[in-house]
Amino acid sequence: MSALKNDTFLRALLRQPTDYTPLWLMRQAGRYLPEYNATRARAGDFLTLCKTPDLATEVTLQPLARYPLDAAILFSDILTVPDAMGLGLYFAPGEGPRFERPLRDEWEIRDLSAPDPNDKLGYVMDAVRSIRRALDNSVPLIGFSGSPYTLACYMIEGGSSDDYRHIKTMLYSRPDLLHRILEVTTRAVIDYLNAQIEAGAQAVMIFDSWGGSLTPHAYREFSLSYMERIVAALIQERDGRRVPSIVFTKGGGNWLEAMAAIGADAVGLDWSTDIGEARRRVNGKVALQGNLDPNALHGSADNIRIEAARILDAYGNHPGHVFNLGHGISQFTDPAKVGVLVEAVHNHRRALQAA
Amino acid sequence: MSALKNDTFLRALLRQPTDYTPLWLMRQAGRYLPEYNATRARAGDFLTLCKTPDLATEVTLQPLARYPLDAAILFSDILTVPDAMGLGLYFAPGEGPRFERPLRDEWEIRDLSAPDPNDKLGYVMDAVRSIRRALDNSVPLIGFSGSPYTLACYMIEGGSSDDYRHIKTMLYSRPDLLHRILEVTTRAVIDYLNAQIEAGAQAVMIFDSWGGSLTPHAYREFSLSYMERIVAALIQERDGRRVPSIVFTKGGGNWLEAMAAIGADAVGLDWSTDIGEARRRVNGKVALQGNLDPNALHGSADNIRIEAARILDAYGNHPGHVFNLGHGISQFTDPAKVGVLVEAVHNHRRALQAA
Repeated sequence: MSALKNDTFLRALLRQPTDYTPLWLMRQAGRYLPEYNATRARAGDFLTLCKTPDLATEVTLQPLARYPLDAAILFSDILTVPDAMGLGLYFAPGEGPRFERPLRDEWEIRDLSAPDPNDKLGYVMDAVRSIRRALDNSVPLIGFSGSPYTLACYMIEGGSSDDYRHIKTMLYSRPDLLHRILEVTTRAVIDYLNAQIEAGAQAVMIFDSWGGSLTPHAYREFSLSYMERIVAALIQERDGRRVPSIVFTKGGGNWLEAMAAIGADAVGLDWSTDIGEARRRVNGKVALQGNLDPNALHGSADNIRIEAARILDAYGNHPGHVFNLGHGISQFTDPAKVGVLVEAVHNHRRALQAA
Repeated sequence: MSALKNDTFLRALLRQPTDYTPLWLMRQAGRYLPEYNATRARAGDFLTLCKTPDLATEVTLQPLARYPLDAAILFSDILTVPDAMGLGLYFAPGEGPRFERPLRDEWEIRDLSAPDPNDKLGYVMDAVRSIRRALDNSVPLIGFSGSPYTLACYMIEGGSSDDYRHIKTMLYSRPDLLHRILEVTTRAVIDYLNAQIEAGAQAVMIFDSWGGSLTPHAYREFSLSYMERIVAALIQERDGRRVPSIVFTKGGGNWLEAMAAIGADAVGLDWSTDIGEARRRVNGKVALQGNLDPNALHGSADNIRIEAARILDAYGNHPGHVFNLGHGISQFTDPAKVGVLVEAVHNHRRALQAA
């Protein structure tokens, strides 16, 4: 396999020196791009888009055609794993993801098993292979999964929730059942991420969207410990190159030190933490990824440059920073503003060095 | 005015020794209580309940009739101030609060002015006086307001939001307009809280429900600095007794040190922070209020005792702890479980002392 033309992102994740701060954006292939909406309209619905490797490849590459981003991320959904477990994922118009068969009864939980990723999730591996071919070693491809706790939230609530009442009721009254779900889901996520790596993913990210809704004690027991097991079981190296891992708990700013200690190469930050303080707190143990407020992209071009510089200056001239948003890009973002951000981030350190 | 029979709550807020850890619960007068639902049905709708002093008094006292809580809190809504500013508060069924006239245009913002609390908000002051009479010096009465930033969120978004797109767009493109709204709202909140204190509120709390959605920099500039101005302008003493103030930013765990430095007597914590660590971080500057996950009340009685003890033990045997939930109680809570919690908290230190 030939060498990557741009490995800045992978080097930053391993805290190696880079010429500039690399960046990619969570949900960079998404509804703010008219070309994405056109492909999605052709697909008919979101799940078909995820499950058709040619279309997933097409949308994965769209933001890279517009902007000189330093990584591609597999276009998929975090709920493919519970879907493959038989819960019946669907998208109700305007409602977000839902499961036909949420987990509530003990017998359903006892019956749960981890799917073979190359069978039920073969369409994801096909997409990974297809995207790698299309990228042609220009930038690395990131694979990803939801965290076990986040997947369990959706599996038990049956969809998005504003109070997590069902999973928390289980957590506070039948923790044994919740642990059973998390055990099976953890095995499934390990197999899923390793299959993505074998298919060609060059870095992996675990999205813990809802771990931040837990108490510190419950976070360690029900979310972080399972992410730690996943990180320990990931394929470390592929084609002679380390496959770095990133963990991201939205709202996890209180627990940075604990997150930095589970063996992942990098920790993702939402925008509620000062990245300079975060760097001091993790004390060189991990790289950091983040952390612009996605709503900052609704601001003026000048203000986007100011907000980007605030983050870059707070991190400072140290290795180990991947610039990103603190959460997925808003569908209401003007694509021209993304161009302003990419240019501002890429030029920041060069401008400082030239000064 | 005769002396309070139970001043444990006020003493704890001032970090004075108490025999046990006092508690009250955010939204303790609410939909989990059948008697509340009966009064609300009689009122017809939520706003009438808020605006009728006799009914507001009735529901304020309902939880105190069931449980030996250490404080009452004025039954009202955080959006009474923008309603009095003319934005037209209403509640759409199943949708939460909404404004008929959200603030979007510059001329509307320039026209905004702080209402006279004894005129437009006279029904709140009548409720405070009526509740004080009904309480008959049994426990203290807490007055409250939303924080300027939180009120501005509702005023600009027009209701609840999951992305705060409109206020953040203003923040990142026309910060001058947002500051104008915050200035006027700050003056209104100062007048509103001082009128509540004059009417009989014995402590006041500022609810910053949405400040946690900001970056650390924006939080200081757009939320904390205005709360600091409010705290500095509050009536300090009434009837020979200090009127303590509590500030609470949901999701503000990252910024505890800054919150502890604005002059309030106490800081409220949601459940994402370990209260023992929080105590060390604020270093005796303030009392702490919190911080049980409201969903813990869906757990078994044994587990409620364990979770309560975890918080009480983490805080330890130091003055300055008011037990509370980390957010409002869920409408799905079994009232019997609240009884379990109240007993567990009240008996904890006594049991330790007897051991």
